[in-house]
Amino acid sequence: MKYKNVEIFSGERVDSLERNGYEIIQNEKGFCFGMDAVLLSAFAKVKKGEIAIDLGTGTGIIPILLEAKNEGKLYFGVEIQSEVYDMAKRSVEMNGISDKVHILCGDIKQIAEKRQLSETDPYNENDEIKDLFGKFNVVTSNPPYMRANNGKHSIEEFKAISRHEVKCNLEDVCRAASNLLKDNGRFYMVHRPLRLVEIVSALKKYRLEPKRIKFVHPFIENEANMVLIEAIKGAKGECRIEKPIIVYSEPGKYTEEILEIYGF
Amino acid sequence: MKYKNVEIFSGERVDSLERNGYEIIQNEKGFCFGMDAVLLSAFAKVKKGEIAIDLGTGTGIIPILLEAKNEGKLYFGVEIQSEVYDMAKRSVEMNGISDKVHILCGDIKQIAEKRQLSETDPYNENDEIKDLFGKFNVVTSNPPYMRANNGKHSIEEFKAISRHEVKCNLEDVCRAASNLLKDNGRFYMVHRPLRLVEIVSALKKYRLEPKRIKFVHPFIENEANMVLIEAIKGAKGECRIEKPIIVYSEPGKYTEEILEIYGF
Repeated sequence: MKYKNVEIFSGERVDSLERNGYEIIQNEKGFCFGMDAVLLSAFAKVKKGEIAIDLGTGTGIIPILLEAKNEGKLYFGVEIQSEVYDMAKRSVEMNGISDKVHILCGDIKQIAEKRQLSETDPYNENDEIKDLFGKFNVVTSNPPYMRANNGKHSIEEFKAISRHEVKCNLEDVCRAASNLLKDNGRFYMVHRPLRLVEIVSALKKYRLEPKRIKFVHPFIENEANMVLIEAIKGAKGECRIEKPIIVYSEPGKYTEEILEIYGF
Repeated sequence: MKYKNVEIFSGERVDSLERNGYEIIQNEKGFCFGMDAVLLSAFAKVKKGEIAIDLGTGTGIIPILLEAKNEGKLYFGVEIQSEVYDMAKRSVEMNGISDKVHILCGDIKQIAEKRQLSETDPYNENDEIKDLFGKFNVVTSNPPYMRANNGKHSIEEFKAISRHEVKCNLEDVCRAASNLLKDNGRFYMVHRPLRLVEIVSALKKYRLEPKRIKFVHPFIENEANMVLIEAIKGAKGECRIEKPIIVYSEPGKYTEEILEIYGF
């Protein structure tokens, strides 16, 4: 079916983002965006005139929300899976923001190593991003959280690639982020606190200094199940542990803070 | 004056620890123990039969509180400043626990490098601690938080040594902890979250893997001002970010959790 000038395929649904009237296409068999992406897009800041890129963008949720909330110049999203890339592109078109948000089909590892997208990507026509290194003020990523240490991925390949480090791992993401950023550029990542020590080591290895960390606890009584990190390329010094985000005030009831972030 | 068989000198005061009837001698011109030490002694666990050592023990607050709350076999505390060491020894005597708690006068750096206390220390007579390496199940430390990067320390020397890295720095403490611990032994430390990245790097460098981290926020709306860390020697893998400790429910009013830890 056609909806707002774009094609919506069988198995896909359109959800409101409660922000600027924006909507997003998702595939229920694939990976739908979670609270992680929403919290990351609230934690990350893109200043006026800045250029941002999201690594492993999936549905495109992060660049779309960042565009809605910030005054950056351009927002890119890179997705390796062509069907997911196509869906994200249609979401951007549907929201009428194709001039500011560009979804690219590419491999994070290739970006980190070869300084450019795959040769078949039409965006290589664009001189501005022919050599990607050192071009960005902001890099964001909601990468796969789990190690690819077993072979149980074949049944639900889409979800596996989004959730497990099949196509890229934590180090690949940090290396790509570091290469893409200008000096003093900001890398915003959401990840699992269980891997905090590994995350800090990987960031440091690629000259990304954690400066701001925010933990997310489902209830005030629970251990954290998400961590939001801002790291600055080439920075030194202190790191602030911000006030934690608590998701629920009671079972089934979001806290005011979460309702505000979601825009309800 | 004499109090409970020990000498209390001019300028000293005796405070209740609200635990087992224990009391502690402090010197108002020196460094009095803070909430950090109390929270660390609640965060740390010493199991039945285990041997623990506290690095930079000051008033002896941590080994005294650990002895009150745990079933360990022996608790040591090392203090470099002889007047402070003497005061901690009298507190132990005053509480009648000299058989289980031993305050030693020694240098953390010397312990880390030379495997033993200074030759003048009477405890070198004790075979059990002649070679300290790999002897301990538990190491605790509430080390100086601030870098020794200026020369303003001379006026209040006692406080300076407790608060600034004059006599030992973060790496010295981690190296000593790692050397003193058995494999799989536990190192509990309280420190400033601003130095978290440096702390994690220093722990990893000495094979101390952070496994449990707890942040302390003055109010739920504030960033963290203390961090409690449990690191295990030679361990690998995941790290849990526990439910945060919130100190005040409203200005001047401790939360239930803090009241419980303090034993009020």
